[in-house]
Amino acid sequence: MTGLVITSPANPRIKAVVALRNRRDRARAGVTRVEGREELGLALAAGARPRTLFYCPELMNANYSTAAQAPGMDLVAQVRALGTETIECTRAVFEKASYREGPDGFLAVIDAPGRSLTDLDVPDGSLMLIAQGIEKPGNLGAMLRTADAAGVAAVIAADPGTDWGNPNVIRSSKGAVFAVPVASATTAETLAWLGERGYALVATTPDTDLRHTDSDLTGAVAIAVGTEKYGLDEEMFDAATVKVRIPMAGRIDSLNAATAAAIVLFEAVRQRRSVTRTTQDPENTWGESWGP
Amino acid sequence: MTGLVITSPANPRIKAVVALRNRRDRARAGVTRVEGREELGLALAAGARPRTLFYCPELMNANYSTAAQAPGMDLVAQVRALGTETIECTRAVFEKASYREGPDGFLAVIDAPGRSLTDLDVPDGSLMLIAQGIEKPGNLGAMLRTADAAGVAAVIAADPGTDWGNPNVIRSSKGAVFAVPVASATTAETLAWLGERGYALVATTPDTDLRHTDSDLTGAVAIAVGTEKYGLDEEMFDAATVKVRIPMAGRIDSLNAATAAAIVLFEAVRQRRSVTRTTQDPENTWGESWGP
Repeated sequence: MTGLVITSPANPRIKAVVALRNRRDRARAGVTRVEGREELGLALAAGARPRTLFYCPELMNANYSTAAQAPGMDLVAQVRALGTETIECTRAVFEKASYREGPDGFLAVIDAPGRSLTDLDVPDGSLMLIAQGIEKPGNLGAMLRTADAAGVAAVIAADPGTDWGNPNVIRSSKGAVFAVPVASATTAETLAWLGERGYALVATTPDTDLRHTDSDLTGAVAIAVGTEKYGLDEEMFDAATVKVRIPMAGRIDSLNAATAAAIVLFEAVRQRRSVTRTTQDPENTWGESWGP
Repeated sequence: MTGLVITSPANPRIKAVVALRNRRDRARAGVTRVEGREELGLALAAGARPRTLFYCPELMNANYSTAAQAPGMDLVAQVRALGTETIECTRAVFEKASYREGPDGFLAVIDAPGRSLTDLDVPDGSLMLIAQGIEKPGNLGAMLRTADAAGVAAVIAADPGTDWGNPNVIRSSKGAVFAVPVASATTAETLAWLGERGYALVATTPDTDLRHTDSDLTGAVAIAVGTEKYGLDEEMFDAATVKVRIPMAGRIDSLNAATAAAIVLFEAVRQRRSVTRTTQDPENTWGESWGP
């Protein structure tokens, strides 16, 4: 191993990465922290390119004999091959930088996911997901995984405060937050953006007879999902072009918000593929049939 | 207020309810603990009938003046009207019985959900959900909420060790574990039960070209969902009558197991309703159109 090894917890690079635990410092720097080997691997698989990787051979594996032999060094080399700065740390230093109990020796600084609406570039006629009031990182993460699987062009949080770089969103999204374009904006900005591009806004509510399976979810469609408790705000709900309900047979009132999103998104996937199959090429495969 | 008030933490009733934190003691007694006002309300709404309710007026509301005026006393009266034994506790006693930080004064002992397969009685031709290897209580809870909404006749865990009475399953199911019949059994027992009743077993896998939306999910259908990491066990997978895949457009490998269950179950709901609409009564409503 050659290169920088940080041995002092007072090193300014370490102080800077510790500061990134704080949301305001993350926002100021435009980056987030991705901690742990699994999260890092998922972020890389999703296309993320770290700015800096802090690593600690001693923590990577209790059974390593030399730094170069530690099993995690393959991943370090992979990151270095992307042009990323990699910084080795002693155990004491890494444990200071880490936020976890039992850190595994990987901590990357990555450009924060999320952009402004004006920078969001999606093909015309895409499928979009609008999330509003979904505060639990686990729910946002689950929605991102589903959005990725459904081929959603982008996810907009109609809450300017949504922190897409929240480490718990990153973890629960299994890296999908780096794979799907995400943005956050006010409700008014979101509605204006959708309106200018001719999107139909589909809201789910129990107070309609139209089932989601009976509504047309092909073409330029944005599916809006609110919280289980409060739903969408009035401005968003009133602006909806189509109101649909997911039929509920049971005794319990509501589906989880992320589950509701999955059910409507995959009905859209079914309809959009039927349209493609009928009008275009019956042998078309998934990846090719998708799109505007 | 009249009736029993427990003032000593050494009271045998308190010792007995404390012991129910232990899974083995719960299993022996055939009951579970449902803690907190919200959980209790959900369990009642789902049809559960508590055996005993321990309550503490002082904890119910910081602003109560007398026990009879505490806002939570309505709920105590509602439970008592079901014929349930209700036991008032002093604060110190209740805090000993509780498992939570910041208990809110409600702790019910309720018959454990879950029965043996031989006691499971479902209409012929139902929609069933089989879960295997789903260990996270949050995932089991989410599946139960979805199963309830989709009108699933019963959920079988093909893991004899599944503890449907786990307090975290109860909480994350929002009470649905008391609304949907649940059972646990070995894989062999589950397959025998399904086979005797003529159920098609539908397994999801990435290794097939048949989409879930192209398979017939009407009639006697059991949808089997395994873990994200390992899928179904070999015995279950090999026994599947139909193997389907949920199309994935994205870069991330897998949907959450509970999300995958929701997507396939609601496709089944769509198909089953289409069949009913076409062959029976086009004006039929949801509740009536559902069934064998």
